[in-house]
Amino acid sequence: MSGSIRPGEDELIARYFRPLATAAGALALVDDCAELRPPAGHDLVLKTDAVASGIHFFADDDWGAVARKALRVNLSDLAAKGATPIGYLLTLALPADWSEAALARFAAGLAEDQAAFAVSLLGGDTIRSPDGLIVSITIVGAVPSGRMVRRATARPGDVLYVSGTLGDAALGLIARTDPARAAGWGLDAGDRAHLERRYLLPEPRLPLAPAILAHAGAAMDLSDGLGLDLARMCRGSHVSAEVRLADLPLSSAAARILAVDPAVIAAIVGGGDDYEILAAVPPEARAAFEGEARRCGVAVTAVGVVVAAPSANGESLPRFIDGDGRDLPFGASGFRHF
Amino acid sequence: MSGSIRPGEDELIARYFRPLATAAGALALVDDCAELRPPAGHDLVLKTDAVASGIHFFADDDWGAVARKALRVNLSDLAAKGATPIGYLLTLALPADWSEAALARFAAGLAEDQAAFAVSLLGGDTIRSPDGLIVSITIVGAVPSGRMVRRATARPGDVLYVSGTLGDAALGLIARTDPARAAGWGLDAGDRAHLERRYLLPEPRLPLAPAILAHAGAAMDLSDGLGLDLARMCRGSHVSAEVRLADLPLSSAAARILAVDPAVIAAIVGGGDDYEILAAVPPEARAAFEGEARRCGVAVTAVGVVVAAPSANGESLPRFIDGDGRDLPFGASGFRHF
Repeated sequence: MSGSIRPGEDELIARYFRPLATAAGALALVDDCAELRPPAGHDLVLKTDAVASGIHFFADDDWGAVARKALRVNLSDLAAKGATPIGYLLTLALPADWSEAALARFAAGLAEDQAAFAVSLLGGDTIRSPDGLIVSITIVGAVPSGRMVRRATARPGDVLYVSGTLGDAALGLIARTDPARAAGWGLDAGDRAHLERRYLLPEPRLPLAPAILAHAGAAMDLSDGLGLDLARMCRGSHVSAEVRLADLPLSSAAARILAVDPAVIAAIVGGGDDYEILAAVPPEARAAFEGEARRCGVAVTAVGVVVAAPSANGESLPRFIDGDGRDLPFGASGFRHF
Repeated sequence: MSGSIRPGEDELIARYFRPLATAAGALALVDDCAELRPPAGHDLVLKTDAVASGIHFFADDDWGAVARKALRVNLSDLAAKGATPIGYLLTLALPADWSEAALARFAAGLAEDQAAFAVSLLGGDTIRSPDGLIVSITIVGAVPSGRMVRRATARPGDVLYVSGTLGDAALGLIARTDPARAAGWGLDAGDRAHLERRYLLPEPRLPLAPAILAHAGAAMDLSDGLGLDLARMCRGSHVSAEVRLADLPLSSAAARILAVDPAVIAAIVGGGDDYEILAAVPPEARAAFEGEARRCGVAVTAVGVVVAAPSANGESLPRFIDGDGRDLPFGASGFRHF
C-alpha cells in the first residue's frame, strides 16, 4: 500500500492489513504491487464495487460489518459469473475521526470473511476521505477459460431463476429509515432483525457458482433491484421477460409485510441490495440446475421466462404480472426512479 | 458498472465510459464483470491507488487533468515493476455538484491517456461521494511469468538510480499553496508552469519498463518522496543505502530554487508526488541499463549505493549525505513527518 496518511501508515498496514495478505502473490504487502498467475486453463474475472457512508451504509454502522458488506457485494458478482474468488484490492478512504479501534474491527471483519470465502487481500491504498468512510474493492476470481457466464446472453425460452429471497434488504432499510411505516407492519423482533441483517450483511451465493457455470445461459447478481437489473439483462440480450409477482420468493417476514402493506411490492422489486443471483436457464437444463442447487444448499426459484423482444429496435422492458394478470405499472424508465 | 446514481447512470456509462472499454474482455461494459486472460507466459501485476479532492489535487483542478493523474499514478507503478499495462477498473465517487460537462472532460482525459499508454477501461463503479471527487483506480499489467521486479530485493553493492528529475511536483505544490515563499524564488513563468504541471500531471516512465525488467534487481515508483520510499525499499530488503544529495537530478527550475532557498532540499527529498522510478541495479548491469535507458529516451541518474544494514535487527534508514559529507538530519522516522 502507498498513500497519504503518512504518520504511521506503514505501521497500520503491518498491524492490520499484512495478516490479511495470505496469498503468495500479495507479497505480504511489502511490494507496491501484487503478482497473480491465474490457475492453468482459467481466465480472471474482475469487478469493482464501492460503498460509502450515508449512501450504502449508515455512519454509525459497525466498521466490521461495513468491511464485510464491501467484500460481499463484490463476491456476489463472482458467484453470478460462475467464478471462484481469488483475492481483492482495497481502497480505504478514512474520515478525519477514524479510530484505531474501528480500524481493528474493520480488519477483523475482513479476516472473518476471508476465511469464510477463501480470499486474500492482494493490495490496497489508504487515503483520507473528504467526509465519511468509503470502501472500494476490486475483486479477482477465476473461471475456466472462455466460460464466464455473461449478463447479455439470455435467450427466449430461458427460465428465470432467483436465489434466496427478494426484498428483505430493501424492507430492512425502510424499517431503519421510516419507523412510522414499519410500525404498521407489526413485525416481531426476530423479523425485524432478519430484515436489518439482510441489509447490513448480504450473503454471496458462491456455493451456487458451479451450478451457474454448468447450466445458466446468462446470469448477474441483483444489486439494484430485480426490476432494474432484469431490464439490464434484457436490454443487453435484446430480449424481454415476463415475471410472475406471485412467484417471487419471499422470506416469511417479507410475506407478512406484503400482506398488510401491499405497496411494498415496489420495494421488493425495485429496492435493491438483494445480492441474490438472477439466472436465465435453458429449459432443457432446468432439472439439472435445480438438482445441483439443491445439493449445494441454495434455494432457487423460477420466477418467469425470457421472451422475444417485441421488435428488433423496440424497448423491451420486462413485464411484472400480478395475480390478476395485470402488469404492475413500473413505468417505462426501467425502475430507475425508485 | 453498477452503482447508486440511478437516474441516468446507465446512460452516462453508455455515453462516457463505454467508448473507453476498448479491450474485448471489457465486454463493452454490458456485463457486470470483465474477463481477462493474461498473455501466454505472463503473470498479471495488480495495484490500486486513489486520489481525492483537497488531498491529492485541488477542488478547482480540471477534471480531465484529475482523471489523467489518477490513471498515471497507477501506470507509474507498473513501469517500476517492468510490466506492460493492460487495463484498469475505475471507482468514481462524484460530489453532489458534479456536472455533465466536468464528467465529459474526465472521460476525455482518460481517452487521451488510454491512447497514449495503450490501456482499456475494464469496468467500474460510480457512486455519490459524501463530499469531493474521489477517483480510485485498480490497474492491471502483465510481466513475463515470475519476473515482476520487486521492491524488497535490493542487495548491497547495487547502484541506486532514479529516472527524470526529483522534487518538481513538491515544489509545484509549494508554489500553489505558499505563494509568499515562492515569490522569493524569483521564478519566471516557464519555471512555474513546469513545476505546477509536474504536480498536476505525472509522467509514468513506461518506456523504461523493459530496461527495469532486464537489469534492475529491485525497483519501485516514488510517490511519497525518495526519503520515505527508499527507506521502505531498504527495510523490506534488510539493507541500508547512501545517497549523495549533490547527485540528485534536478530540473533547471528546481536547481535555481535550491540555490536561493536551500531548505527546499527537504521538499525535494521528502515531498512526494515525483512518480519517477527508483531502481537498484547490480554493478555488472550498470552499462547495459544505462545504454537501454538512453535508447528509450528516459534519463536515469545514479544517486547512491545500497549498503549492508548495520546489524541484522538494527534500524537501517538510508543516509542522505550533503556536499560537505554531513548527513542530512531527516530524523529516525523515515521522513514520515513531512
